[in-house]
Amino acid sequence: MSDSPAKALIFDVFGTVVDWRSSIIEQCQQFGARKAISADWDAFADAWRGRYQPYMNKVRHGELPWTNLDGLHRMMLQDTLDEFEIAGLSDDEKAEVTSFWHRLRPWPDSVPGLYRLKNLFIIAPMSNGNVAMMTNMAKYAGLPWDCILGAELARHYKPDPESYLTAVQLLGMQPHEVVMTAAHQSDLLAAQKVGLRSAFIPRPMERGPGRTPDPTPDPSFNVVATDFVDLAEKMRALA
Amino acid sequence: MSDSPAKALIFDVFGTVVDWRSSIIEQCQQFGARKAISADWDAFADAWRGRYQPYMNKVRHGELPWTNLDGLHRMMLQDTLDEFEIAGLSDDEKAEVTSFWHRLRPWPDSVPGLYRLKNLFIIAPMSNGNVAMMTNMAKYAGLPWDCILGAELARHYKPDPESYLTAVQLLGMQPHEVVMTAAHQSDLLAAQKVGLRSAFIPRPMERGPGRTPDPTPDPSFNVVATDFVDLAEKMRALA
Repeated sequence: MSDSPAKALIFDVFGTVVDWRSSIIEQCQQFGARKAISADWDAFADAWRGRYQPYMNKVRHGELPWTNLDGLHRMMLQDTLDEFEIAGLSDDEKAEVTSFWHRLRPWPDSVPGLYRLKNLFIIAPMSNGNVAMMTNMAKYAGLPWDCILGAELARHYKPDPESYLTAVQLLGMQPHEVVMTAAHQSDLLAAQKVGLRSAFIPRPMERGPGRTPDPTPDPSFNVVATDFVDLAEKMRALA
Repeated sequence: MSDSPAKALIFDVFGTVVDWRSSIIEQCQQFGARKAISADWDAFADAWRGRYQPYMNKVRHGELPWTNLDGLHRMMLQDTLDEFEIAGLSDDEKAEVTSFWHRLRPWPDSVPGLYRLKNLFIIAPMSNGNVAMMTNMAKYAGLPWDCILGAELARHYKPDPESYLTAVQLLGMQPHEVVMTAAHQSDLLAAQKVGLRSAFIPRPMERGPGRTPDPTPDPSFNVVATDFVDLAEKMRALA
């Protein structure tokens, strides 16, 4: 890393910290079993998540007013229920299914790595998920965040520059003092563009087995680590 | 407490969670000794804090644009240095003194009480202090917050209703599911007015020895506890 030391690491969450896909599939399967609804829940989870970017784009382009991710997940769920021809859920049941996104399992290295990083840096989620979602998820998964940052506090979804810069401002830091950490190269490139540093962690299983892994990490990234424990080792050397 | 259970406790911090006065006095004394500046640091701390309400009023009434508490503390410091005829500090030294507010000691019962409450509820600061200040203070003092809320996220200082309602909204809750906790009755009355519940903890030593303690707690408060450990016991009974 360059001249002045990093003070905070902020993290993409879906895919980078938690295994959203298997967690959503499992909760949907259990819900289906309880309610006697059968469906291909793997495909359901992928179709639900597949509506993520299009819905954020609606907010970005003003087709929807600012809506947090809980709100978007609820609309995306309705579309997905319609697609899979699952009818008859009550509003309470739909709210329950939407809240599955508050209970996602961390990858095995996430919690031990975050504890090590927390000894040296301020650590915070920098997710498109809203504050309540991230707070409940941290409690569920034991994620030891120092504070909760994210798109909702900027009312701009990543990769809009305002999202990253609001986090930097709330931390009371300069952009180069903050390291954006993600398994998605586009997220890191956008953060770098507004002056943040970058750390890349591959998560080849994010989209399930048999998917093509991410291509070679961009050479501009400041740190490339194999997982969060390796990241803590590499950051310790640079602190 | 009434019908539906409380889900989150949010806390005033200065005076309620931390002993700002003795912490500021001690850091100023140490700074003075290091820099060979002598002053009545008890009076200095009180004069510095005495500018808190007037400066927030400047923001409230539009005489100042939105300025977070680090920014106000810096201006209030300058006025206080002028009042005490302390000259010649560099900008870096003034920034250092301003950051004393990031390192305040908790009252002895605060951390044990917060750990107990965290098992049952989401706990978060709801302070006029900004996110960076609260995050650094939590790290310094070992305050186990689930997330950092506060005036900065609403760009409205307490007791403006927007400050409390923004916290409730970010938690994804209804106002009556959130308990405002403070040693200051005015803070609780303002939170109650917009539908939050209230818990009062007396902190008779906040302003130093020999000050008149707060009057009898308003009978409208939902919970009155002697300290944070007692509060955890009382809230457990109500959870």
